Amino acid sequence: MSPSSERRTITGFSNSTVKYLRSLREKKHRKREGKFLAEGLRLLTDARECGHVPEILVMSDTRDPHPLLAELEAAVAAAGGAIIETSPDILTKITGKSNPQAVAGMFAEFDTSLTQLARSAAPIWLVAQELRDPGNLGTMLRTCDAVGAGGLILIDDCADPFSVEAVRASMGAVFTQAIAQARWDEFVPWLRGGEGQLVAASLRDAVPYRGAPYQAPCFILVGNESQGLPEDYEAECDLRVTMPMKGRADSLNAAVAGAVLAYEVLDSLSQQT
Amino acid sequence: MSPSSERRTITGFSNSTVKYLRSLREKKHRKREGKFLAEGLRLLTDARECGHVPEILVMSDTRDPHPLLAELEAAVAAAGGAIIETSPDILTKITGKSNPQAVAGMFAEFDTSLTQLARSAAPIWLVAQELRDPGNLGTMLRTCDAVGAGGLILIDDCADPFSVEAVRASMGAVFTQAIAQARWDEFVPWLRGGEGQLVAASLRDAVPYRGAPYQAPCFILVGNESQGLPEDYEAECDLRVTMPMKGRADSLNAAVAGAVLAYEVLDSLSQQT
Repeated sequence: MSPSSERRTITGFSNSTVKYLRSLREKKHRKREGKFLAEGLRLLTDARECGHVPEILVMSDTRDPHPLLAELEAAVAAAGGAIIETSPDILTKITGKSNPQAVAGMFAEFDTSLTQLARSAAPIWLVAQELRDPGNLGTMLRTCDAVGAGGLILIDDCADPFSVEAVRASMGAVFTQAIAQARWDEFVPWLRGGEGQLVAASLRDAVPYRGAPYQAPCFILVGNESQGLPEDYEAECDLRVTMPMKGRADSLNAAVAGAVLAYEVLDSLSQQT
Repeated sequence: MSPSSERRTITGFSNSTVKYLRSLREKKHRKREGKFLAEGLRLLTDARECGHVPEILVMSDTRDPHPLLAELEAAVAAAGGAIIETSPDILTKITGKSNPQAVAGMFAEFDTSLTQLARSAAPIWLVAQELRDPGNLGTMLRTCDAVGAGGLILIDDCADPFSVEAVRASMGAVFTQAIAQARWDEFVPWLRGGEGQLVAASLRDAVPYRGAPYQAPCFILVGNESQGLPEDYEAECDLRVTMPMKGRADSLNAAVAGAVLAYEVLDSLSQQT
């Protein structure tokens, strides 16, 4: 399907565009089409301001007028995209959310190769290995944005960053942050081909995370939610740091661990300059 | 239903105990019965070691033998609880998880009144206002455990800490941490009736979160996922702190914000002693 600049109203659940958009909630359809969905005026505005205009804009016929929505419509029209008006029920059907936002958009997926990353453009990068929860993935993107990171690198078999859940949890950071996907044996040669310190939260042979000798660009590696990092991945790290664990548990939620570490690195690097 | 010390095998989906246990996935049934479900040998072992023995223990007939499981069985039998053996399919039906753990347990809900909290027993407490996501709630309990907090205080209309999702995300901390539920107008008089510093992450009239004058017991207040804290709640705080936001977003995920702040408070208090 190739969107062309048009404006129309859809009233039927069985409409082919509705079916097409809805199919993008499933990974196999996203991958085949190279498209994904995002919802909400704020998120779509973040996208537009970062240069991502939806190819299809879907608006609820019960929406309130808003200057940002008018700007969004104008941008879609200027880019030759499609603008669709429909009912909240059909929006619910598309996004799977029972209280749908007034707008949703279909975007082209981005290049997620390592080679598009400008490693020296940011002091911090998050790296997640086999991160399986799309909510954790989106939360890590949101943290990347907050600490001024360059982006999130997804190692081995992670959740899909373009899933509706990940995009939602990212609160728009899916559009502001670079995202790369790679196998570990692709990532390590890429990393070692330039500057960059690889840091992991670890219990093995680690120094306290506070005051550790962080260096920019600092790549913060977080492991799988239930298994943590493989031992040889930890061994590859330039620095292994440990966070206090005062209770019975020996680990934090993956997105939490990444954020606590990222804020420490941010503070450490800011004191160096 | 009153569990008595017994051991039996259940093979049918329509068994009344299966239906009863399954009903506890719904909040209204949990509240009526005062019971909740938890899964996994590690989590149930944490519970046992913290003095919480399930009233009903459900074990998969495909489980592997394990010394911790034997200890758990013995504890349930000694406490007069019921031990049930069943198929993985029926365990899936009970817990709603497609790859079920080999064991699950039914526990009595705890006292969640403010009056059971020993505020001076711990240097840090987390306080969440209208936290709606059970995953965030469980993650905050897990963070409480990690920083050696006393527990989590849930203000106004929060997700249920005894939901399957919250218990799962807590990784057992639901059993190690005190949990209280209160309205804001109950919480403030309770807080002001003793020692305690109320701290919020805020953009209004705030000082940098690093190096702020934290005092134990420090109550860290985190607001609702989409609305943040009401202005008058922030005004009640003894200290308002702000975290760097380098990107487009003006907030972090609620569980992430609580954790970054809790680790800073932990570090600050440890330097004071």
